Amino acid sequence: MVDKKLAGAGLRGQSAGETALCTVGKSGSGLTYCGYDVADLADNASFEEVAYLLFNGELPTKAQLDAYQSELTAMRDLPEALKQVLKLIPASAHPMDVMRTACSFLGNLEPETDFTAQNKAANRLLAAFPAIMCYWYRFSHEGVEIDCTTDEVSIGGHFLKLLNGKTPSDQHRRVMDVSLILYAEHEFNASTFTARVCASTLSDMFSCVTGAIGSLRGPLHGGANEAAMDMIQKFSSPADAKVQMAAMLDRKEKIMGFGHAVYRESDPRNVIIKAWSEKLAKENGDTSLYDISVACEEFMWDTKKLFCNADFFHASAYHFMGIPTKLFTPIFVCSRVTGWAAHVMEQRSNNRIIRPSADYTGPEPRKVTPIAQR
Amino acid sequence: MVDKKLAGAGLRGQSAGETALCTVGKSGSGLTYCGYDVADLADNASFEEVAYLLFNGELPTKAQLDAYQSELTAMRDLPEALKQVLKLIPASAHPMDVMRTACSFLGNLEPETDFTAQNKAANRLLAAFPAIMCYWYRFSHEGVEIDCTTDEVSIGGHFLKLLNGKTPSDQHRRVMDVSLILYAEHEFNASTFTARVCASTLSDMFSCVTGAIGSLRGPLHGGANEAAMDMIQKFSSPADAKVQMAAMLDRKEKIMGFGHAVYRESDPRNVIIKAWSEKLAKENGDTSLYDISVACEEFMWDTKKLFCNADFFHASAYHFMGIPTKLFTPIFVCSRVTGWAAHVMEQRSNNRIIRPSADYTGPEPRKVTPIAQR
Repeated sequence: MVDKKLAGAGLRGQSAGETALCTVGKSGSGLTYCGYDVADLADNASFEEVAYLLFNGELPTKAQLDAYQSELTAMRDLPEALKQVLKLIPASAHPMDVMRTACSFLGNLEPETDFTAQNKAANRLLAAFPAIMCYWYRFSHEGVEIDCTTDEVSIGGHFLKLLNGKTPSDQHRRVMDVSLILYAEHEFNASTFTARVCASTLSDMFSCVTGAIGSLRGPLHGGANEAAMDMIQKFSSPADAKVQMAAMLDRKEKIMGFGHAVYRESDPRNVIIKAWSEKLAKENGDTSLYDISVACEEFMWDTKKLFCNADFFHASAYHFMGIPTKLFTPIFVCSRVTGWAAHVMEQRSNNRIIRPSADYTGPEPRKVTPIAQR
Repeated sequence: MVDKKLAGAGLRGQSAGETALCTVGKSGSGLTYCGYDVADLADNASFEEVAYLLFNGELPTKAQLDAYQSELTAMRDLPEALKQVLKLIPASAHPMDVMRTACSFLGNLEPETDFTAQNKAANRLLAAFPAIMCYWYRFSHEGVEIDCTTDEVSIGGHFLKLLNGKTPSDQHRRVMDVSLILYAEHEFNASTFTARVCASTLSDMFSCVTGAIGSLRGPLHGGANEAAMDMIQKFSSPADAKVQMAAMLDRKEKIMGFGHAVYRESDPRNVIIKAWSEKLAKENGDTSLYDISVACEEFMWDTKKLFCNADFFHASAYHFMGIPTKLFTPIFVCSRVTGWAAHVMEQRSNNRIIRPSADYTGPEPRKVTPIAQR
């Protein structure tokens, strides 16, 4: 068999399958989920409606949404054994290791026994991830064993209440909701492709999502919003930001939160989260972080023609809501689990095991020399 | 950007990168690890030598092997917190969920903080997996808290002693050693490709191996030796095997342990493990299972021109050594962790994030109807 040689490393620009879930950077449409522009969804839908859309292909009616929200709300609490595992993980752990481990552990207790249970498994993870993140964080960092249920209807509000222990404002609820919508789905990115490769062996939903979390953990994929936060916190003013960024470029340091593997002109998510970051800055009386972020955006465009991606203004937006930086990427998990699970379901619906070939670059055939003669 | 459309689903026959580790089905060479034929390695090397080869590109000298074995032996015991997690997993859990979870949990306690620690992380998993598997199995199934250390030098002997609580025979040690060699590495199979996609985000070793375990769990990938065992145990004699297999084919049931995605004529691992299965049958005074297995092989070749793959005679070989069927795929993990980790190291050495594209098959652009009007 002669293998077809692909031009680009990393399968860049190569089609690895079909999807009805998402377009990224298609001419004129920016980012769409099941045909809907992400900006339209961010203006006119909730994250739960988007999750329903990704899992079912259509937006819910009011009655369907009410039923779906009730189902999710009832699935939020964590089993006692999972709480014990979370208590065994030290505060020094990487928060993405915590998410990956909790997802995997839950698969032991509540296995997806066959694919008719796939929506239940996906919804269970969607409902449980905020509590997983906050239970570990608040126990390991504050010594508090939180109640994993709240009276918040939305996943965004539920997360904020678990994290802060108090009812969030309507504006904070809405910003979290929009943020979760923006991060929900993004075609064959590396974590989603991981989930699809796993799904192609007909493995279970928990394995697929666990694998995806591990890939999102990588600094070339998730984590850009955390890196952006670390950077902008070092700048004392917009003018200082430009001076320091110029020095970073001189030192050839990587500046996170700009540019994109697929988008060429702009990231359609940036304008949306940027507007919310500005509103939060006003609400908070911020006179520094938002302006510094805008200065960074201007500088990178003026000097490198690089635009902000979805991650850059997420940094300040999350910060204004009191979210610790180390939880930024785990929040991404709480959102993207919808896209991952939808891709798993899609892969299963028309499956062939994903098993590429490789070009061999190693030694020619050779004989083993017995160890006594080596 | 116009994406290149690939002919085969599942990237079959498409090159997704380069490797110096392995050739599968290349004309005249069957299966090679770093240029060595797997049959030559099975005859003239130990599994630890093969692990060293995959991680370093060359077989060790005697002094290097001694040092490597000492390093591995010192890494076998499990942290107390990991034992507690294993005790929280019920006997009803899927054993691959246990392996995946334990690997992920260990990443919280002993993170690979940077890539200079990659060999240490890989060796830690290689050393710890037999104890992970046996600690959970014997606690959940027998109520026994085992000592995770033994005086066995080889990983194969160590596993057998942990499982059975007694010193294994030289022959059993050698069969386990050969089995671990045969399963160690197999190019861009789905679990290894999962590990490489994860590695391409520059994520950590524990994430990559955790993801790979999740993919190996799928019934289209791992698990064929378990399915083969379940089948041959139902047959009462060689003649009965042929009658029942004919009926299975009539019912269009899938018969596991035969054929291969890449090999066309034979699986070079089969003749090796088959010979050991025959020796074990003689040692055990078996007058049934081995002969039934041979009858299955004859039947599938005569009727379907399908050959036994590596998994088929592994079933009887493992069974003759008293290994419970549900541990067959976890043993695969204990072996293949070498190949996975070697591919992670190779991916890192010349990395570009693996981010393919997809062909869109979904709805045309559409507007969100507000929920009140749906």
